[in-house]
Amino acid sequence: MSIENAASVESPLRHFHAVIPAGGVGTRLWPLSRAAAPKFLHDLTGSGSTLLRATYDRLEPLAGNRVLVVTGVAHRVAVCRQLPEVGESELVLESEPKDSGAAIGLAAAILYRRDPDTIMGSFAADHVISPDNLFQETVREAIHTAAAGKIVTIGIKPTHPSTGFGYIRTGDLLNIDDAPNAHAVVEFVEKPSEDIAKKYLETGDYVWNAGMFVAPVALMLKHLEANQPVLFAGLEEIADAWDTPERDEVTARVWPTLPKIAIDYAVAEPAAAAGDVAVVPGTFRWDDVGDFAAIGRLNNAGDVDEVTVLGEGARVFTENASGVVVSDTKRVIALIGIKDVVIVDTPDALLVTTKQHAQRVKGAVDALKASGDTDVL
Amino acid sequence: MSIENAASVESPLRHFHAVIPAGGVGTRLWPLSRAAAPKFLHDLTGSGSTLLRATYDRLEPLAGNRVLVVTGVAHRVAVCRQLPEVGESELVLESEPKDSGAAIGLAAAILYRRDPDTIMGSFAADHVISPDNLFQETVREAIHTAAAGKIVTIGIKPTHPSTGFGYIRTGDLLNIDDAPNAHAVVEFVEKPSEDIAKKYLETGDYVWNAGMFVAPVALMLKHLEANQPVLFAGLEEIADAWDTPERDEVTARVWPTLPKIAIDYAVAEPAAAAGDVAVVPGTFRWDDVGDFAAIGRLNNAGDVDEVTVLGEGARVFTENASGVVVSDTKRVIALIGIKDVVIVDTPDALLVTTKQHAQRVKGAVDALKASGDTDVL
Repeated sequence: MSIENAASVESPLRHFHAVIPAGGVGTRLWPLSRAAAPKFLHDLTGSGSTLLRATYDRLEPLAGNRVLVVTGVAHRVAVCRQLPEVGESELVLESEPKDSGAAIGLAAAILYRRDPDTIMGSFAADHVISPDNLFQETVREAIHTAAAGKIVTIGIKPTHPSTGFGYIRTGDLLNIDDAPNAHAVVEFVEKPSEDIAKKYLETGDYVWNAGMFVAPVALMLKHLEANQPVLFAGLEEIADAWDTPERDEVTARVWPTLPKIAIDYAVAEPAAAAGDVAVVPGTFRWDDVGDFAAIGRLNNAGDVDEVTVLGEGARVFTENASGVVVSDTKRVIALIGIKDVVIVDTPDALLVTTKQHAQRVKGAVDALKASGDTDVL
Repeated sequence: MSIENAASVESPLRHFHAVIPAGGVGTRLWPLSRAAAPKFLHDLTGSGSTLLRATYDRLEPLAGNRVLVVTGVAHRVAVCRQLPEVGESELVLESEPKDSGAAIGLAAAILYRRDPDTIMGSFAADHVISPDNLFQETVREAIHTAAAGKIVTIGIKPTHPSTGFGYIRTGDLLNIDDAPNAHAVVEFVEKPSEDIAKKYLETGDYVWNAGMFVAPVALMLKHLEANQPVLFAGLEEIADAWDTPERDEVTARVWPTLPKIAIDYAVAEPAAAAGDVAVVPGTFRWDDVGDFAAIGRLNNAGDVDEVTVLGEGARVFTENASGVVVSDTKRVIALIGIKDVVIVDTPDALLVTTKQHAQRVKGAVDALKASGDTDVL
């Protein structure tokens, strides 16, 4: 379906503007992902595309070139190399990280000034989704739901009782035209214990909170103003100057003063309590690539025996081994008689763990930080 | 005990000359040990000395500066750096490897010409032995036994039913002065199955064949001539030229023509059949550092939690891990939740295996060789 056909004059699709927050180091993917080369700049699926590029390509059929990217100044060059289509007016550079409330709030405020009827959709730069057409169908439903006056989260049908994600408790069907699967949201719930996660699965009323949402920018700003007036005022000041020669001066002055808060607390949860949040469950495959065990799940093209190999020009020899090897060097890597191992080989740091312990990589990074070994972080 | 005191005019100790065959890549210790940097040039015990240097230092109290080193031409510079005391006349360089028969036979022939009463002692450059004084006591007994007209192997009291070593079946006590523990040798037996190894231990009659022996050079050459006349003739020709200006010319012409055979088959086994071999059991600790599991046994000074770390300036972080890390780089190595792992990190090759599978490293090297990846071998 082409953009022209999908977005008729009457369709809310023509007001859709994608926002890609490209932040987060991805500490659990150290030493591959790190401050200088965060997760979204890596090809973690063996597709040949970085996660950022794949995110853009997935959104382009919906948004055309209406894609705003929010990232750190340090990643400007890398992001522009990945996304040469993104012009300066579509690139929001953070001089310092201020959490998702400021990043997404500023995007909303800028887009509101360009078109107050904008429906924004925010999609993290470092998730893996397939197939694209199912994702796009779900986002289209979310856009139609947003046009009916909702902040719309995209939920993911749980495939197992994960304790690593927050959940969304779904309510009644909303019966919105062109959005047959849109439901009310009863509440957002934090990451549960395994017992509770199992109960969530049994009820069938819960979906994973994948952090993706679609909403009218006006409604976003209304809730932001009501719940975070200081943050809102600062973002308004920056947004007023954004498309003027004063952008740099105002941003440099105001951005560092903004409070740090996640968009979930700044907007989504209070809006849910006010009955303004809906959910469209997605049936596409979704993975936030939270650790190296995910790399094993997401890749098999490069398998050598039972070992998943990621990395261009990797030279991996295995005998009676299984697991994941991420090679960021040209070194020969030999695995002998070792099972479910995770090996990440980079020029200055080597990680060896197991799929089972992959979540604990963050602890190692914290320990390195504490010991002053920040050169490899 | 100083050499002067130990070696009275009457003592055979004054005719003792140590020989150190420094060969063998140590394939099971790849990628640390390799053609360009074989096992004997590494410090595998964290002592600060290479195995070669430690071997020399262990022999010096017995041999003084009468230590002949046999090694490959490729290792000349490295060996001289490790053993600056060894002059040119004490260095035998092999232009190509010809197995231990030629290496030790040539040493015997050279030493015979310098002193026909020489008692040679051959000790591999890449074994780990402690304590030195127990080793030296055993060698002294072996020298006295050799002086009585025997080729004397030094056996090691088995500590477990190893299937990785050959065994020596001991016979009657020989009742030699100054060698109260010298026994006859009944036979040499090949590496046994585990069941047979257990039976060997039960009888108490078997010791490990550690490949160390002490013998009159005249007796060595007599058996060599009888069993390997072609090899013997070639070695005689080279030895005749050795301390003359013709050394290089003759060696270059004859050495490549010599048959390849182990000293065990060329001399020790036929001599044993002739009743000419004795054994002195050693009670010192001996390890041939056959694989990386041995590195764990031999080291603990550098332990980080339950991980044995070998390598100057190693930067190893562990959480809930155990095993051995050999670091030949300055990279940070993080181990998380992995047990009994063996990691060998070198600039161009990385090995990850387990202590249990450490013996199978040789198979990986063979596979790399077969696939043409010889740059890292």
